[in-house]
Amino acid sequence: MAKIIAINAGSSSLKFQLFDMPSEKVLTKGLVERIGIGDSVFTISVNGENQTEVSDITDHAVAVKILLSKLTDLGIIQSLDEIQGIGHRVVHGGEIFNDSAIITEETLKQIEDLSELAPLHNPANLVGIKAFQEVLPKVPAVAVFDTAFHQTMPEQSFLYSLPYEYYEKFGIRKYGFHGTSHKYVSERAAEILGRPIEHLRLISCHLGNGASIAAIEGGKSIDTSMGFTPLAGVAMGTRSGNIDPALIPFIMDKTGKSADEVLDILNKKSGILGLSGISSDLRDNIQAEKEGNERAKMALEVFASRIHKYIGSYAARMSGVDAIIFTAGIGENSIEIRERVLKGLEFMGIYWDPTLNNVRGQETFISYPHSPVKVLIIPTNEEVMIARDVVRLAK
Amino acid sequence: MAKIIAINAGSSSLKFQLFDMPSEKVLTKGLVERIGIGDSVFTISVNGENQTEVSDITDHAVAVKILLSKLTDLGIIQSLDEIQGIGHRVVHGGEIFNDSAIITEETLKQIEDLSELAPLHNPANLVGIKAFQEVLPKVPAVAVFDTAFHQTMPEQSFLYSLPYEYYEKFGIRKYGFHGTSHKYVSERAAEILGRPIEHLRLISCHLGNGASIAAIEGGKSIDTSMGFTPLAGVAMGTRSGNIDPALIPFIMDKTGKSADEVLDILNKKSGILGLSGISSDLRDNIQAEKEGNERAKMALEVFASRIHKYIGSYAARMSGVDAIIFTAGIGENSIEIRERVLKGLEFMGIYWDPTLNNVRGQETFISYPHSPVKVLIIPTNEEVMIARDVVRLAK
Repeated sequence: MAKIIAINAGSSSLKFQLFDMPSEKVLTKGLVERIGIGDSVFTISVNGENQTEVSDITDHAVAVKILLSKLTDLGIIQSLDEIQGIGHRVVHGGEIFNDSAIITEETLKQIEDLSELAPLHNPANLVGIKAFQEVLPKVPAVAVFDTAFHQTMPEQSFLYSLPYEYYEKFGIRKYGFHGTSHKYVSERAAEILGRPIEHLRLISCHLGNGASIAAIEGGKSIDTSMGFTPLAGVAMGTRSGNIDPALIPFIMDKTGKSADEVLDILNKKSGILGLSGISSDLRDNIQAEKEGNERAKMALEVFASRIHKYIGSYAARMSGVDAIIFTAGIGENSIEIRERVLKGLEFMGIYWDPTLNNVRGQETFISYPHSPVKVLIIPTNEEVMIARDVVRLAK
Repeated sequence: MAKIIAINAGSSSLKFQLFDMPSEKVLTKGLVERIGIGDSVFTISVNGENQTEVSDITDHAVAVKILLSKLTDLGIIQSLDEIQGIGHRVVHGGEIFNDSAIITEETLKQIEDLSELAPLHNPANLVGIKAFQEVLPKVPAVAVFDTAFHQTMPEQSFLYSLPYEYYEKFGIRKYGFHGTSHKYVSERAAEILGRPIEHLRLISCHLGNGASIAAIEGGKSIDTSMGFTPLAGVAMGTRSGNIDPALIPFIMDKTGKSADEVLDILNKKSGILGLSGISSDLRDNIQAEKEGNERAKMALEVFASRIHKYIGSYAARMSGVDAIIFTAGIGENSIEIRERVLKGLEFMGIYWDPTLNNVRGQETFISYPHSPVKVLIIPTNEEVMIARDVVRLAK
């Protein structure tokens, strides 16, 4: 039986999920944290129970070795030979990758070159890839890019109205992110709706600590709210989303901060956290709102109203919409946010049922059966998309 | 008979329009250019014909003196005593002014203090105000603010998802501009539609070299595309509109420019000009597109698609829309842009007639009579709004 491992490597972390394919059964999953920092934490799920061990894991290659020996020690697999493919999440594929790609020397070089566009993420992803190359050099590996699904966007969506040479010289354009998630939920929506994806106009709302909205026409992303970086678009947990660009020099003047320092504030101290002053976590703000906190209420209103407006905007973009999808942490679980986002969209044919909406983390319709536009909650599954792409490409 | 003069002063220019009130008849209008630069040009309309004179006009007070003597010399008025009020366009009224205001020592001070928010415009507007105070010290003057109409926006529209103290300390919020124009066309639309403005949801597209969209519910602006400055929102002749804010530090890094230099590029070298590389003038780009220029085509598509998406967004904002209004240079005159903006909005109940759309500069419906959502062209008239406010406040 083919086992495929899906990896999401950060600078000091490594998330993994082991699949049996083609059954797509999850055999185990887990996480290594604090790699190279000391007091590293290794967590692995065994028969649905998390086992945790603390030790010093000096680098990602060591983490991979521990992971692999755990898989056999715990009897999850009999031999490492069963692992027939490794899939790595890579954040930025630039304009080079419009699909996942087998990792070769050339691919590695390209991912490295693209680090300029994702200085925090691509280098960390590369560390994960190299760690597996070191330990399992013969097993085919595949890179699955967050940006690839959005490469179908036409120029009118991806170009900024900046001097055109900035696009030619520096690659300045909208790339979009969360592509693997938007792709998964759109394909799943077509299955649930029992209609060919080629005929569907979908708006996918991936709402987590990072959040992005995508307009998906005929199975292809034609627009998305994140941009050159994941800072753009709607307000998020700590990110500002779109603001008047003139504010950056203005804030620099007022605070004496550098452009990079202001950018850091836009990424880490803004969004729901910045507005409410309470927390970047939506649940804390919903709790505070219930207790009468006005700023929490306002932060939630800003968050929801930007998403609400994107839905209108993307419906216009596609001359209508067949289904709205909610996914990721907030999208799957926040009854309150879905309610606020959907309220007042009846004019577009969106009729939803507060009773159906009263669920968390389930794949379900929340629109009324007669609603011309369907509304769905679909828990996302980026890992299974990674595993599928490994099977498809590693053959 | 009461004559009211409406003034729009720039740093080296002075536009004027003389009204007979309450008939709202325009008695004359004109423009002084290159004030304080040398070879100043004074243009005044006499019986529909423009008269032009070139001389050196050293400052705005001299320009006002020349203007007033022309008015009597040409017999447009018999005596300066007929001028019973002066209305000044002022760009930024901040959060102080939610309506036009009689100019007093206090008002002047407030407008001056607001220069921080509009460093190019408010000081120039003040020069115009002071020039008239010098020459006609006894005539009541009124300031009419570009931002005032948008002061009805609720917090969820005007707050950026930035640290909240930026709003409290620095006044960082969405102000919006073109308010006098949005107000004029929305009031006029209610008249044309024969319905009380309190019951209408309108989307007003002010499309000139600067462009902004406003969502107007019950006669009140509840959202608009421009922001803290007139840079934000849709792409414009030379302005970028919204971009990923992370691009500013990135462009600074790549080009070695300062934040202010990058801002200058976003204001003056971006938009339609930046994308097409041809011109900021829409007509040049439409001509180039006809001749097969791909970048001109793309610039026009970007320009129109952003407006198209705002219409969807603002319809969602108001849970529907009763009428769309096009105004200002491009909105009134560009058949091609209106067509591109409106195409594919039938799902929202917008049905428009290409034959009716085939007009320039006329007040007319372009929607089919049976269209649930009406579409109107309404030539804007900020000057008459200024004159009306002078009459209302100077009594």
